[in-house]
Amino acid sequence: MPHLSKRGTELPTSPIRKLVVFSDEAKARGIEVLHLNIGQPDIEAPKAALEAVRNTPLKLLPYGPSQGELSYRKKLAKYYSKHQIEVSSEDILVTTGASEALTFVLNSICDAGDEIIIPEPFYANYNGFASAASVKVVPVISEFNSQFQLPALENINEKINSKTKAILLCNPSNPTGYVYSQSEISTLCELAVSHNIFLIVDEVYREFIHGDIEHYSVLQHPKGAAHTVIIDSVSKRYSLCGARVGCIVSKNKALIQNLLKFAHLRLSPPTYALIASEAALDAPDSYLEGVIAEYGKRRKVLIEALEQIPEVEVSHPMGAFYCIAKLPVDDAEAFSKFLLTSYQDQNQTVMLAPATGFYSTPGMGKNEVRIAFILNSDKLLRAAKILELGLRAYKKIQLETLV
Amino acid sequence: MPHLSKRGTELPTSPIRKLVVFSDEAKARGIEVLHLNIGQPDIEAPKAALEAVRNTPLKLLPYGPSQGELSYRKKLAKYYSKHQIEVSSEDILVTTGASEALTFVLNSICDAGDEIIIPEPFYANYNGFASAASVKVVPVISEFNSQFQLPALENINEKINSKTKAILLCNPSNPTGYVYSQSEISTLCELAVSHNIFLIVDEVYREFIHGDIEHYSVLQHPKGAAHTVIIDSVSKRYSLCGARVGCIVSKNKALIQNLLKFAHLRLSPPTYALIASEAALDAPDSYLEGVIAEYGKRRKVLIEALEQIPEVEVSHPMGAFYCIAKLPVDDAEAFSKFLLTSYQDQNQTVMLAPATGFYSTPGMGKNEVRIAFILNSDKLLRAAKILELGLRAYKKIQLETLV
Repeated sequence: MPHLSKRGTELPTSPIRKLVVFSDEAKARGIEVLHLNIGQPDIEAPKAALEAVRNTPLKLLPYGPSQGELSYRKKLAKYYSKHQIEVSSEDILVTTGASEALTFVLNSICDAGDEIIIPEPFYANYNGFASAASVKVVPVISEFNSQFQLPALENINEKINSKTKAILLCNPSNPTGYVYSQSEISTLCELAVSHNIFLIVDEVYREFIHGDIEHYSVLQHPKGAAHTVIIDSVSKRYSLCGARVGCIVSKNKALIQNLLKFAHLRLSPPTYALIASEAALDAPDSYLEGVIAEYGKRRKVLIEALEQIPEVEVSHPMGAFYCIAKLPVDDAEAFSKFLLTSYQDQNQTVMLAPATGFYSTPGMGKNEVRIAFILNSDKLLRAAKILELGLRAYKKIQLETLV
Repeated sequence: MPHLSKRGTELPTSPIRKLVVFSDEAKARGIEVLHLNIGQPDIEAPKAALEAVRNTPLKLLPYGPSQGELSYRKKLAKYYSKHQIEVSSEDILVTTGASEALTFVLNSICDAGDEIIIPEPFYANYNGFASAASVKVVPVISEFNSQFQLPALENINEKINSKTKAILLCNPSNPTGYVYSQSEISTLCELAVSHNIFLIVDEVYREFIHGDIEHYSVLQHPKGAAHTVIIDSVSKRYSLCGARVGCIVSKNKALIQNLLKFAHLRLSPPTYALIASEAALDAPDSYLEGVIAEYGKRRKVLIEALEQIPEVEVSHPMGAFYCIAKLPVDDAEAFSKFLLTSYQDQNQTVMLAPATGFYSTPGMGKNEVRIAFILNSDKLLRAAKILELGLRAYKKIQLETLV
């Protein structure tokens, strides 16, 4: 057998998808699995997006411009302007999802062995993107007890060395739901400028803000033009996860020019999805207002239900649609597996995302899970109940094993 | 300004897209540009593919399985079986275009500094994919005078060393139109097995065969199961370039498992495009027969027209929809630029793809261009006429400059 590469064999397995085999088996046994583990919206996409695809007169699908159609980039610039982010179509490069956007940016600014600093816990695939690009993730721990706010500046500062090329954030955060304040973003921005490194902010959950706070985009900061980059996507905003359309936004023209070479290589983003994404920008404001109100309702239902489970602690997400919960177990991954392989209540069980996959410091998050409030309120209530019953059953088995 | 990476700055600029700025300027001056430079089909996609997207009941676009829907992979296995390629759905990983397929395979089998051997001239983006993955392309020259058949085995053999991880071919070939014979593929396959390296064959033009020859797929060879990989795509076959759907096919299970980790990272291929691609497999045989007959006609028209231009030599493509032409100029890139910036006949000009971009050996292909026979026959005739007149005008200017 011919050898595979070191980078291929060392690429981490997706921690979110690792339990899928057990959930498939549970489903095969006739058990309904309530998915608290994934960020797949169930709310309808904007009608304008679906109609645009249905009505396209295209008789064949040509390659589009590698950077995305000018008309789409112009409309995106207007969308950003509504969010106090002043950019032009030239500052935007359309990508095949935020995944490709981040991969392009990492490859464009880091060589093999370079480092990026990320507050953890962080979106699990950041580990994978970095690993695939031979880039080292240097984590800085943010704390459950402070709702995962930005770690102290000196903790970040001391990790910066000559190999550090960027700080990467997700704001609002997947998996914690924390929303970084204007002051936190400004501090990081000034830090990036002073060290002459990039600050990359994944803002795919920009609008998903719960309560009376404002999202502050990294591109609103007046001094960061050369040093800041937004990663964005239509996936969550318009329930278009499968579209695979995202973008990179930066006022650093040399960066955009360099990224364009990577974009040329893969020819163009997917045509149908671009048609849907461009039309989605025509959705009335009421569309997103409705979506966010619905997630706000689900958030309230879930948090209240989780807080009533004995010994469960839960972070209070200010944005996105995830929270981190601490469970009264030693190993949340083993418990998550138990729920899928050895537990059911009235033929139902729940699937969780063990939080260790969102940390890169070994041992962190062992008793934590990420929970998405993507299901409707009734299902969320039922899922929380099953979690409570499952925890009780798990404890009982553990006690019996000890006897 | 923060620094960009070495791999980003060293990534080659797409040689095909390099002249685009001049063609845009020509169009802005009101000149019609006949594109002989790109492989963008103008034939309609199968009705079944377009209808399936139009009629999809989806109200939102969910992520699909990272390896592609099982139903699509099963239908693909049947498609391959019709081409004497016996594989199962488990041997197929659906990708976002052949571009992603090749990127995944290179990353999965090569570490930074490893080498792949490619007969040149080759599809220009192979240089880019390799460069982005820090892989070195080792070219072996194939000759215009032998229609670009496989170079002598000893020429390939002597390039193999401990860093060599694969031989990469395109069959039928973009840019030469050469179709490798069963004997050539078998020879390479046995070479790969004996050196325990991979043989990767890009077969996106599988059906585009002109004349009485048979395409022999690398997966038809009985001994290559662990060592062979097909790269494929719906782009040219069904005029679905903008769909961005391709696949990797291999019976090497360890490879497919490893590739799946890269696939998990980018979540899933684009949903709408998958719907179109799966439905395209339902198109009647007459669809592709009609497409290939049309390209066959265009091929005949173009080759005959080019052969009548004084001092132009042209390769006789057996497959795909490209040929290589030798022009009576020192620098085909300068001439191609001249056609766009300083020439027109009745307000029309042509755009060519200078062949140096398809070689990695410096100095090779300086007087060659790649010509695609994608335009309809009338436009091809007119384009050949403009090429003839343009060559005459260019020569005249060069002579005048000498005086």
